[in-house]
Amino acid sequence: MAKEKLRVGLVGYGFMGRTHSNAFRSAGRFFDLDREIELVSVCGRDGDKAQAHADNWGFKRAETDWRRMIRRKDIDLVDIAAPNDMHKDIAIAAAKAGKMVMCEKPLGRTSKESEAMVKAVEAAGVPSMVWYNYRRIPAVTFAKQLIDAGKLGRVYHYRAKFLQDWTIAEDLPQGGAGLWRLDASVAGSGVTGDLLAHCIDTAMWLNGPITSVTALTETFVKERTHSLTGKVQPVTIDDASLFLARFANGSLANFEATRYARGHKAAYTFEINGEHASIAWDLHDLTRLAYFDHRDEGPERGWRSIHVTDGDHPYMGHWWVPGLSIGYEHSFIHQVADFVQGLSSGEAAAPTFADALKTDRVTDAVLKSGKNGRWVESGL
Amino acid sequence: MAKEKLRVGLVGYGFMGRTHSNAFRSAGRFFDLDREIELVSVCGRDGDKAQAHADNWGFKRAETDWRRMIRRKDIDLVDIAAPNDMHKDIAIAAAKAGKMVMCEKPLGRTSKESEAMVKAVEAAGVPSMVWYNYRRIPAVTFAKQLIDAGKLGRVYHYRAKFLQDWTIAEDLPQGGAGLWRLDASVAGSGVTGDLLAHCIDTAMWLNGPITSVTALTETFVKERTHSLTGKVQPVTIDDASLFLARFANGSLANFEATRYARGHKAAYTFEINGEHASIAWDLHDLTRLAYFDHRDEGPERGWRSIHVTDGDHPYMGHWWVPGLSIGYEHSFIHQVADFVQGLSSGEAAAPTFADALKTDRVTDAVLKSGKNGRWVESGL
Amino acid sequence: MAKEKLRVGLVGYGFMGRTHSNAFRSAGRFFDLDREIELVSVCGRDGDKAQAHADNWGFKRAETDWRRMIRRKDIDLVDIAAPNDMHKDIAIAAAKAGKMVMCEKPLGRTSKESEAMVKAVEAAGVPSMVWYNYRRIPAVTFAKQLIDAGKLGRVYHYRAKFLQDWTIAEDLPQGGAGLWRLDASVAGSGVTGDLLAHCIDTAMWLNGPITSVTALTETFVKERTHSLTGKVQPVTIDDASLFLARFANGSLANFEATRYARGHKAAYTFEINGEHASIAWDLHDLTRLAYFDHRDEGPERGWRSIHVTDGDHPYMGHWWVPGLSIGYEHSFIHQVADFVQGLSSGEAAAPTFADALKTDRVTDAVLKSGKNGRWVESGL
Amino acid sequence: MAKEKLRVGLVGYGFMGRTHSNAFRSAGRFFDLDREIELVSVCGRDGDKAQAHADNWGFKRAETDWRRMIRRKDIDLVDIAAPNDMHKDIAIAAAKAGKMVMCEKPLGRTSKESEAMVKAVEAAGVPSMVWYNYRRIPAVTFAKQLIDAGKLGRVYHYRAKFLQDWTIAEDLPQGGAGLWRLDASVAGSGVTGDLLAHCIDTAMWLNGPITSVTALTETFVKERTHSLTGKVQPVTIDDASLFLARFANGSLANFEATRYARGHKAAYTFEINGEHASIAWDLHDLTRLAYFDHRDEGPERGWRSIHVTDGDHPYMGHWWVPGLSIGYEHSFIHQVADFVQGLSSGEAAAPTFADALKTDRVTDAVLKSGKNGRWVESGL
Repeated sequence: MAKEKLRVGLVGYGFMGRTHSNAFRSAGRFFDLDREIELVSVCGRDGDKAQAHADNWGFKRAETDWRRMIRRKDIDLVDIAAPNDMHKDIAIAAAKAGKMVMCEKPLGRTSKESEAMVKAVEAAGVPSMVWYNYRRIPAVTFAKQLIDAGKLGRVYHYRAKFLQDWTIAEDLPQGGAGLWRLDASVAGSGVTGDLLAHCIDTAMWLNGPITSVTALTETFVKERTHSLTGKVQPVTIDDASLFLARFANGSLANFEATRYARGHKAAYTFEINGEHASIAWDLHDLTRLAYFDHRDEGPERGWRSIHVTDGDHPYMGHWWVPGLSIGYEHSFIHQVADFVQGLSSGEAAAPTFADALKTDRVTDAVLKSGKNGRWVESGL
Repeated sequence: MAKEKLRVGLVGYGFMGRTHSNAFRSAGRFFDLDREIELVSVCGRDGDKAQAHADNWGFKRAETDWRRMIRRKDIDLVDIAAPNDMHKDIAIAAAKAGKMVMCEKPLGRTSKESEAMVKAVEAAGVPSMVWYNYRRIPAVTFAKQLIDAGKLGRVYHYRAKFLQDWTIAEDLPQGGAGLWRLDASVAGSGVTGDLLAHCIDTAMWLNGPITSVTALTETFVKERTHSLTGKVQPVTIDDASLFLARFANGSLANFEATRYARGHKAAYTFEINGEHASIAWDLHDLTRLAYFDHRDEGPERGWRSIHVTDGDHPYMGHWWVPGLSIGYEHSFIHQVADFVQGLSSGEAAAPTFADALKTDRVTDAVLKSGKNGRWVESGL
Repeated sequence: MAKEKLRVGLVGYGFMGRTHSNAFRSAGRFFDLDREIELVSVCGRDGDKAQAHADNWGFKRAETDWRRMIRRKDIDLVDIAAPNDMHKDIAIAAAKAGKMVMCEKPLGRTSKESEAMVKAVEAAGVPSMVWYNYRRIPAVTFAKQLIDAGKLGRVYHYRAKFLQDWTIAEDLPQGGAGLWRLDASVAGSGVTGDLLAHCIDTAMWLNGPITSVTALTETFVKERTHSLTGKVQPVTIDDASLFLARFANGSLANFEATRYARGHKAAYTFEINGEHASIAWDLHDLTRLAYFDHRDEGPERGWRSIHVTDGDHPYMGHWWVPGLSIGYEHSFIHQVADFVQGLSSGEAAAPTFADALKTDRVTDAVLKSGKNGRWVESGL
Repeated sequence: MAKEKLRVGLVGYGFMGRTHSNAFRSAGRFFDLDREIELVSVCGRDGDKAQAHADNWGFKRAETDWRRMIRRKDIDLVDIAAPNDMHKDIAIAAAKAGKMVMCEKPLGRTSKESEAMVKAVEAAGVPSMVWYNYRRIPAVTFAKQLIDAGKLGRVYHYRAKFLQDWTIAEDLPQGGAGLWRLDASVAGSGVTGDLLAHCIDTAMWLNGPITSVTALTETFVKERTHSLTGKVQPVTIDDASLFLARFANGSLANFEATRYARGHKAAYTFEINGEHASIAWDLHDLTRLAYFDHRDEGPERGWRSIHVTDGDHPYMGHWWVPGLSIGYEHSFIHQVADFVQGLSSGEAAAPTFADALKTDRVTDAVLKSGKNGRWVESGL
């Protein structure tokens, strides 16, 4: 008997478009899904590029008008990999058209935008999901399992950093293709929405709501040439964003993101310290989870470096054999697999739009505190 | 204009069958190849399993008689992922039928088998390649580039280990599906052909021929139940194999492989020490290359941990962005890409059957020395 | 010709008393000092313990009245290793008596106390020094040399943590011998003065003044039994203290200290990110300095792990041979050697009391911000 | 009541003389010993240097004739830190004079020399000990405790390396002060006796006798200028020495030492793989012990990095507080403490001369096998 199909229409063919297309294309090869994913259409401003993307990844067609794509009957799921300023309109239109919606993070440029998007999918009753992909790196998912199993006891501390160094050069232009992340009118913010959002999503998934924050934000390079206009213009984003916070469970948070940390490419790290045990992870060595358990016999206690590649580690039974690593792209494949399994089970795979809105409430509070120098409540 | 096709017939649907199918299926998505890879047929003893493999990976058909598959006109390339005792016959038949041949390592069970295979492909004038995939982990390929650039100067030492621990349990059976690697009549040898062969291939690629060896081999568990017969039978493989050796360039070698190193799943490591610089790598952290350069200013010298994920690192421009890791399976994808590019350029991608035969000459010498306790020449 | 003597009177025979006595006793064996250090007197509340300390370390006598000790003519240098609440009175009395003064950190319990101490040594014109020993771990001193050599360029980020886990148990008592660090009336504060003070001293030495801070402090365990009274009393110290800050040079700071980070014993770490290079260090692996230099050739760039044990590394020419580590206690020995060499050269070895006062201004600001939730200026 | 004295006469004031003097001087400060160590005399060829050593470390006198020193009544213990070619004569004379004898490793230049030394101390009934100091690095001693507690089960593999790089430069001279380790007539051999001897001592202490070996030795630089004669002479030592071996318990050994491993200063590492657990250590990070225990719950298994600084780790209760490292020199202090405690308890601290002779039997076998290319029995 033929499987039900899940027909995908993708908006965006950039870096994230590639990770999504690869994920849709591969999920069914490694996971036993009860829907068959069909790549129907890819949509983008530049028709030639959209067609090239379609050809490469096996979409049936390319198109340039996302509003038209959304109206088509041969699309079940609209997947948004376009720049942040387009998320809201596309998502709301898709929901209104009765399509399932997946959206790159952050959900909106502000929590106000995100709220509208949540309302739309809830009003339409359509499944939604946001691509906070790092939840599904096996080592990170395993951290969640350890926490859910009660290994930590009372939690005291959570700290996360996301360090990059790609914008240090003062002659790097801003704006336009590939550089819209440096333009706050498109991106919403700088590292707060781009990098901290990932850290916050993981943190609240692992450790519950962040209730209040005090932040420090900075723009190190004040002016850059705009890649489209050629003019020197003020830089509108936060180059660095740090905040201290309290979680609802009483633990303390320390977060930092920057694109000015020389020597770090994508150094997303987190650590959580509980009464009985601690856990730490580093994206640069994503296969490993560091785990310290105080219940181990005294003199033999030490931080364990767990190589998360065994068959009984999350997702790993679907890949190769113990000791053999998977990489970054697999987190997207896992997300597609979980989304599809959520459709079948009726239990929506997280993070939904509603989950992602909470992250945006925190990033909003961070940006506000960065400006007013006060503690700001997240409302969570 | 449509691309020329490369029509693949695969023999074997086990672990290696999966890595090969994934590689053939993905190479064209990430590399700009001038042939279009078509998955035509998968062949295996069990028709149902072959069909399931075909369905999952998109082969047009499944079949159970490899001799028939080889005779078909719609196959350009025969890829051998069957157990080692089938390599020779399939490869020779394929070559005689004028097909290109790719073969899992080790090439033959003995260098005698391998010689026959080399003769066959050379007589037929067909391209050949052996899946010594670790050459194409980007960090390993980068090591080769550093060496070819003369960074090391005179080489003094090369050492490699491949440590696993999956056969320690005495009640693990031997033989049959999934366990043929414990049966020397099928596998040819134990860890010598399975693990050391990888180490030797990389070593001779990086550092030239190994000329003589002295070895120590051991079978720790002397008897195991055979999974097919149910009988307790002598174990015929080497559980551990260590050897010291001389390279033609005057450097000294230290190699070790075992499946009895508790705590190690697939710990393939190598290190090479030259007059000016040293290089080290570890499969468990495959993204990193360790590099020490004595020409760095004195007090600032240190082992560099190079995260091999930048766009100017080998293969990495085809994947994501700096800092984001790829994994084990990608080495197979790179191999397919290089093989196809070799067809176009006319310069065969290594290792060819002739290259792989050299590795078998060394493993033969190791096994011989392990028995007679003497230094044995490899003939290289 | 006999060397001039430096006759030492030590107050305190606890953990710090031992590190100081060992340092005074060993410095002249490894460094060519032009004064001969003589251990004259150790003073403490408990006469038997003082005597035992004197016997063990070779002090000529033990005594119990520090005021009397200070008045004696056979003492040149008063070294204070008593609990924090005694620092001020002893230091001021010693200065007034014309003695040189060395004092454990933090200088005073508050910057107000520290100010009085600075005034006293400056009025008396006596040399002073505070035992911020981590400056003289060779790897840390080497970091300073790299920074002074201009390797970093413009600095963007500085972050430091000091993580411990020894007060997690709720049944740990507070107050009294060995536990006075949990009593704010004796210690001045909790982790802010005990641990953050170290981090701040190093930071301002490496990266200049911290001008403003916003902090988050917490007392996780609200009540503990007092070890002297046996009564359950409110805990008065900060168990954890985190702050964000700005340096005068425009860089951003992230600091954290806690005694509730399971798995960490004395995990003092710092990292500094500059335009051209970054540096990181970890007390748990104190022999190594991590260094990343963007000026290295592109694909070969990586974090260098510098094993700071070569003869041309700071202090190391006085110890063993390359590759052989020294430990924690050596930082105290180096401090004594530098103090004595400063006496000879006339250039006082840092940190003087005046230097240490600056650290106390920052810790005061941190504690104030932790209470009022606002950004607080340090006055530096 | 005054303690009995242990009056020390030291022969040799070089690198090892310094480590021994420091150890004798410090042991009683950190360990509660029932003998008081008195530094009586230091003896060496150069009277001025001997006097300087005496002055620095507090020996009562210096002298230049070791035969005379041995005859003196105010010496209880003769400690030999002179070059290897003097070990035998001094040790035998000291034993005959009824002195206790401690001797730097290796015991003799050959096992024949060592045998004579063993006979001498046994005939005289005097305590003896050899400075295989690495046994008393706390992490190494802790490894021994784990093994003695039966954590490993049946042992399969032991491997050790000692890598240095200080003789790569071809213009480094040989022979004479500081360079006698390059002269086989003085040293006995090259890296085999200097470095491998350490590895073998630890290995047989942890894992029992090595019974047979096959070796590969090499001299990379064939001629060097002699520092005393100024003439270019053949190099007589082994620059590199590798061997495979069998232990009496059935496990396999892999050993390697070299002074041509660029990037390594004193990289002594060992690893032991047992049925249930594995242990690894690295002198460059001597505070840590790596430990993997297969009995840990499946998915949480990982190599533990044990920071061997807790009060219940070997020797560490005598030093500072958890998390604070000690270094290389402390292994010598521990050895003195254990030697003195062995005198009191009547149970001689290992390794005695008889223990060290076993190591020399193995190094002799290695050197022989390196020449004849055969497996050689150690006789153990």
